[in-house]
Amino acid sequence: MTDANATLDAVLSHVDANIDASLERLFTLLRIASISTDPAYAGEVNTAAEWLTHELQGLDFDAAVRPTKGHPMVVGHQRTENGPNVLFYGHYDVQPVDPIELWTSEPFEPKIAEENGRKIILARGSSDDKGQLMTFVEACRAYKSVRGSLPLGVTILFEGEEESGSPSLDAFLTANADELKSDIALVCDTDMWDTETPSIITMLRGLVAENITIQAASRDLHSGMYGGAARNPNQVLAEIITSLRNPDGSVAVEGFYDDVEELPDAVAEQWKRLPFDDKAYLGDVGLAEPAGEKTRSVLEQITSRPTCEINGMWGGYTGDGFKTVIPAKASAKISFRLVANQDPHKIRAAFRKHVEARLPSDCTVTFHEHGASPASLVPSDGPMLQKALGALTDEWGREAAVAGSGGSIPIVGDFKRKLGMDSLLIGFAQTDDRIHSPNEKYNLESYHRGIRSWVRVMDALAK
Amino acid sequence: MTDANATLDAVLSHVDANIDASLERLFTLLRIASISTDPAYAGEVNTAAEWLTHELQGLDFDAAVRPTKGHPMVVGHQRTENGPNVLFYGHYDVQPVDPIELWTSEPFEPKIAEENGRKIILARGSSDDKGQLMTFVEACRAYKSVRGSLPLGVTILFEGEEESGSPSLDAFLTANADELKSDIALVCDTDMWDTETPSIITMLRGLVAENITIQAASRDLHSGMYGGAARNPNQVLAEIITSLRNPDGSVAVEGFYDDVEELPDAVAEQWKRLPFDDKAYLGDVGLAEPAGEKTRSVLEQITSRPTCEINGMWGGYTGDGFKTVIPAKASAKISFRLVANQDPHKIRAAFRKHVEARLPSDCTVTFHEHGASPASLVPSDGPMLQKALGALTDEWGREAAVAGSGGSIPIVGDFKRKLGMDSLLIGFAQTDDRIHSPNEKYNLESYHRGIRSWVRVMDALAK
Repeated sequence: MTDANATLDAVLSHVDANIDASLERLFTLLRIASISTDPAYAGEVNTAAEWLTHELQGLDFDAAVRPTKGHPMVVGHQRTENGPNVLFYGHYDVQPVDPIELWTSEPFEPKIAEENGRKIILARGSSDDKGQLMTFVEACRAYKSVRGSLPLGVTILFEGEEESGSPSLDAFLTANADELKSDIALVCDTDMWDTETPSIITMLRGLVAENITIQAASRDLHSGMYGGAARNPNQVLAEIITSLRNPDGSVAVEGFYDDVEELPDAVAEQWKRLPFDDKAYLGDVGLAEPAGEKTRSVLEQITSRPTCEINGMWGGYTGDGFKTVIPAKASAKISFRLVANQDPHKIRAAFRKHVEARLPSDCTVTFHEHGASPASLVPSDGPMLQKALGALTDEWGREAAVAGSGGSIPIVGDFKRKLGMDSLLIGFAQTDDRIHSPNEKYNLESYHRGIRSWVRVMDALAK
Repeated sequence: MTDANATLDAVLSHVDANIDASLERLFTLLRIASISTDPAYAGEVNTAAEWLTHELQGLDFDAAVRPTKGHPMVVGHQRTENGPNVLFYGHYDVQPVDPIELWTSEPFEPKIAEENGRKIILARGSSDDKGQLMTFVEACRAYKSVRGSLPLGVTILFEGEEESGSPSLDAFLTANADELKSDIALVCDTDMWDTETPSIITMLRGLVAENITIQAASRDLHSGMYGGAARNPNQVLAEIITSLRNPDGSVAVEGFYDDVEELPDAVAEQWKRLPFDDKAYLGDVGLAEPAGEKTRSVLEQITSRPTCEINGMWGGYTGDGFKTVIPAKASAKISFRLVANQDPHKIRAAFRKHVEARLPSDCTVTFHEHGASPASLVPSDGPMLQKALGALTDEWGREAAVAGSGGSIPIVGDFKRKLGMDSLLIGFAQTDDRIHSPNEKYNLESYHRGIRSWVRVMDALAK
């Protein structure tokens, strides 16, 4: 055994020996009700930032609470001249707890419970994202305790507004680009493949969101007087929505798939090997038939393939009873999940053209955009990714997965565009963690082995 | 000039001389916010019933507020042994006023305004149906003032639930059939052919109304995690709505046209003579292209042909901003306008079958019915009809039209089935009266010459 391996083992042993103290520190953070969307909790959000700063300072980070126009950031440095330097990102704010009556215990009084034979940490933020970010802090602590220093340079960035749409992040990254820029970013806000299999997310879908309103008549009409001859915008909208999908489940907007690439062979191969139960995934939410592209697996449909969803639609009378109205307007909220190389602006333009081409000549359409973010793709053959995959495989005794995430994590795009930095998305959450919902939990194993995983990943990246 | 003609002229002159007082009484009724669909206005509905009863009693009607399980009826009698006896029907309840912000004046503070060179009465219910029913009351008043009695026997029935689907009417007609049965019913809830041409409606479309809810997943889903693979009920509903219409504008439900008959030849001939401007009819409400069956005129599309309308639809997030949800449910309110011989129950069953046949196997649909009424057809060659047409022709100086109405007036079918009585549908509303919409109005001329018209029709029917 080399010295380096001896050190690694010592650090891992230290993690195991001190897990109760690590858990106690997480509990302290979980007791702070740092709900960022509700102004009533601004003081608690600030308390969480201060507590984290104090923790980082205790680990010799040059750390400070950094004010923004909204809730503060926490930034801490412990960098090295000899590289590599990593930027670790997490967020310390949490979602509101409504509906509170569905919680089986107090959301801000964390406790250990048992569920399906596993120990879980039950509290708002246990998984999203306090438990996850603390896995990294505790890994740093173990290194400091055992060898007095970290194996590589680290900058930490904790955000307090992730659950409110990160309104201050953009300006903060721009203003502090030099200070934050590192060789790679480590983002801990994602799930494992399953309870046994660690994963690194290398594909994140982007999003284009549009609000559209179709106007037909200049006012609401009575269907007794106009029914039959008057254009009904509900009907027009329904026909346009229908036209967005082909019978084979694919999106029918012209050029939609032009820039879509196939999965790298190695990833496609790995996905065939990895366990993923289509029936269980849909069955959990009461569904049975995959609704997307018929030639693609459920896993592809939700992660590596783009799609179109009608997130909302409304027109006419929607209250109790019945009103025989032909409304003047009908609206929908429509979004496209994008994959790498799809240009959100090009997709938006193609969508608008698609709608306009199907509009009766006496109707008008109004578009209102709600954001556009491209997909993110981390090259699956990069050396940093390979080292991290190896470290996770060592810890969990299972081949770590290269995975996609169906949702957007906008910070990854921000890091790429503003700081020129790729991200490794490594997280230990599970799909059943009930984030954003009552009774949020984090598996105790996720926390313990999450800390151990970071010890190994830091060691691997340092080599 | 005969005595009878002298009396008729005297009554008509009395109407002209007292139009301001007639208008003042209408205003008093319009100030009562008798919205029947909203329980908050139950007291106002009752006030309107009491006010009308008091008015009828003042004209020597044996009148009373008659309770039902819902809002009350008003019934008044002034019958004759020597016949004929007529039953006059109107409704004193009104539609809700939403969207209130589009009203240019208070809906329950009636006022006279000018529009396109005509004086109008601006208020909720001015046209539908308070203004119309008061034309008959004021015609009775003129007879009472001039000659002390009515020229024929009259029973009046005012309903307070017409805008809520008349839930109590059926039972009331059944329970009071002997009391209400007359030689013919006069129903005042319809339009003139145009501002110059009076009309009697002999064809009324029926209505089948359904609320449908499509359920896909067991709960709302996040489109980041499920988008692509999860069935989106908004999409399913849009596809079902689309499937209800053929590209040629006809309704695609199987068997929908099986029992539909063509217009009688005489009516088809008159319609070719009468002025009807397709472009103006649609242009008035900002439309240009007829949306119904391509082989039919606009007039046919809105009166003598059946149709299908989406009166409301909703699903997912419909508030400000954007939420990337895949909802569990989506709903629509769908109605069919029916023409003579179409069986509402058969049409409802065919519609449900149509929907079920298009439902993905892991979705469910819930149907909730909102009434079914067949179309009504009054024989266009009856003697009462011919007398009334003559009276209207005399008043307006134009050949009165035999017309169809696109809307349902279920009472006509009820009168036929329960009381064995045909109805003459005579009204003075205009198609641009904006009933059920903001800024409802009734032309002052409709009110004034409407009163005069009833004076003449009563005179003609008495002969």
